[in-house]
Amino acid sequence: MTPQVAYFPDVPAPDPEAAAAARDRQAILTKPSGALGRLEDLSVWVASCQGVCPPKQFERARVVVFAGDHGVARAGVSAYPAEVTAAMVANFAAGGAAVNVLAEVAGASVRVVDMAVDVAEPLSPAIGAHKIRRSSGDIAVEDALTPDEVVRAIDAGRRIADEEVDSGADLLIAGDMGIGNTTPATTLVAALTDSEPVVVVGRGTGIDDAGWMRKTAAVRDALYRTRRLSADPVALLRICGGADLAAMTGFCAQAAVRRTPVLLDGMVVTAAALAADTLAPGARQWWQAGHRSTEPAHSLALQRLDLTPLLELDMRLGEGSGAVVALPVLRAAVATLASMATFEEAGIGAEQT
Amino acid sequence: MTPQVAYFPDVPAPDPEAAAAARDRQAILTKPSGALGRLEDLSVWVASCQGVCPPKQFERARVVVFAGDHGVARAGVSAYPAEVTAAMVANFAAGGAAVNVLAEVAGASVRVVDMAVDVAEPLSPAIGAHKIRRSSGDIAVEDALTPDEVVRAIDAGRRIADEEVDSGADLLIAGDMGIGNTTPATTLVAALTDSEPVVVVGRGTGIDDAGWMRKTAAVRDALYRTRRLSADPVALLRICGGADLAAMTGFCAQAAVRRTPVLLDGMVVTAAALAADTLAPGARQWWQAGHRSTEPAHSLALQRLDLTPLLELDMRLGEGSGAVVALPVLRAAVATLASMATFEEAGIGAEQT
Repeated sequence: MTPQVAYFPDVPAPDPEAAAAARDRQAILTKPSGALGRLEDLSVWVASCQGVCPPKQFERARVVVFAGDHGVARAGVSAYPAEVTAAMVANFAAGGAAVNVLAEVAGASVRVVDMAVDVAEPLSPAIGAHKIRRSSGDIAVEDALTPDEVVRAIDAGRRIADEEVDSGADLLIAGDMGIGNTTPATTLVAALTDSEPVVVVGRGTGIDDAGWMRKTAAVRDALYRTRRLSADPVALLRICGGADLAAMTGFCAQAAVRRTPVLLDGMVVTAAALAADTLAPGARQWWQAGHRSTEPAHSLALQRLDLTPLLELDMRLGEGSGAVVALPVLRAAVATLASMATFEEAGIGAEQT
Repeated sequence: MTPQVAYFPDVPAPDPEAAAAARDRQAILTKPSGALGRLEDLSVWVASCQGVCPPKQFERARVVVFAGDHGVARAGVSAYPAEVTAAMVANFAAGGAAVNVLAEVAGASVRVVDMAVDVAEPLSPAIGAHKIRRSSGDIAVEDALTPDEVVRAIDAGRRIADEEVDSGADLLIAGDMGIGNTTPATTLVAALTDSEPVVVVGRGTGIDDAGWMRKTAAVRDALYRTRRLSADPVALLRICGGADLAAMTGFCAQAAVRRTPVLLDGMVVTAAALAADTLAPGARQWWQAGHRSTEPAHSLALQRLDLTPLLELDMRLGEGSGAVVALPVLRAAVATLASMATFEEAGIGAEQT
């Protein structure tokens, strides 16, 4: 029997009145209407998420990196061995990873959680507080999670979002770390979009042609076991996802429930977000896409979510790195509404415009 | 007789040894090789400009907004009357314009200089210290500047760059403000690239179809007077440019002479940069393109300079606004080389990678 699925109440919509006020205010700021391009739309979005115009500058942007190993890594789908996942968790905790230094320069803080790293003891009790298991299953030959585990993992992501929002986070970013994790993420996108493996499989951390063929075979085998389930995101996360992906799904959905904007990162996070918007319809209204990675499945997922990325810098690292590089663009958008002079304040009369 | 043209000595090349050291360092940082995409190339570029690896984070990024009116504005080529230029100079000085608030959030400071605003008295002696004249000429019917003025304007831009570098600026951004200034800038790009007016003329601040036709006619008439001069940037700045454009040209060229990196803004600045790279060949090595605006001439100029913009956010404001929004991307690139852990520091052995 399938356990009770983690329940997401109706997702609220961002505030249309704050959006209208923001649009009106953009029209009277000292610049030609529309001249700030996407910054104007982004400023309206932030105002609608915060329910206030002008919006407040983000003071507690928070990155949560969801770490987990995947049995499929044993099939040679990655350029790196699985041991690197645990080593990178220590690197995040020590502040030496890309997302740490990029977050610092963008004014965000980083937390790492061990959802399914293949070590007997988590790096610390706090990091392991939400851990589901040691490594998710090898999706090429078995389900990633049990029916009980997938529900617990989604719920863990939900509780992590609650913890962050309750601690004052005003913008959330999910990041991923896990050798082999683009294989389940790619399978998830393929299943949710009814796509063929060859269309969606990319090079991940940088595999060669033989590695790409092994990865494509793994995706194909996993995808076969998901047939007729494309409308059931919980079943998909169980069969071809993993504890990290399920937790990111719960995290992205719950952020929307808690009216907290999210800046999506790359392909793995966006795969989870696609599942989250299926599980909690409308959640996407609370998200922006930070960047477009080089992974084909990422573009496909973004298209389904109707999100246009803020940056295209050929990044493909994960960890939340692309989203934190995009964070200053959101800050810039907020600053226009919050701090620019109006024509009236600048003494530029209607007869001049 | 044409006066002596402002002289730019041979432009130095960025340091290849620092570039090589930066490339080597990117390869040992804790991420797959190439996974940070363009951030890696940008970090190598900053290291080569600074001549040191790891590069130092920018501590004194400086925006200089070059303000000037243009006689051609009387022909109805803009959605705004010329009086707005002077009002905006006051807005920059008061800190209320878009570039002020965007620079503040990106950690840059802003200076405005009156090169040719159509007022009898500059807003302040400092702002008017380099002023050439009241409004540049109407390029549809007359030269923008005299032979003496164009040389003085280029030299003023050169001295402004010197002032900033001598005051410690480690990154320079030129911005533009001037009602009607996309008309001379468009003509300049057309002349330097042998392009037809209809290919390059855009909507500027947002003109209607009739305005677009007037603007295209002005560009065509000015362009006619530049025939056979496409290789002489000083003559072009005199005939179809203006004091602001000539000063930005000197500014961009001198930044390269002074080994100081520049983040280019939109179409007007990039038109001047195109002239600067013709006047001081190789100067482009010291520049990155901050963003791509919606103006067609901007893409054409970027293509000639072989520069790929960091951002594409449909901005079209000028003032340096697009460049300052891109500044955090450069900061992110610097941070990777300056602060990320190496595999060795993270205790990830060669047997794991």
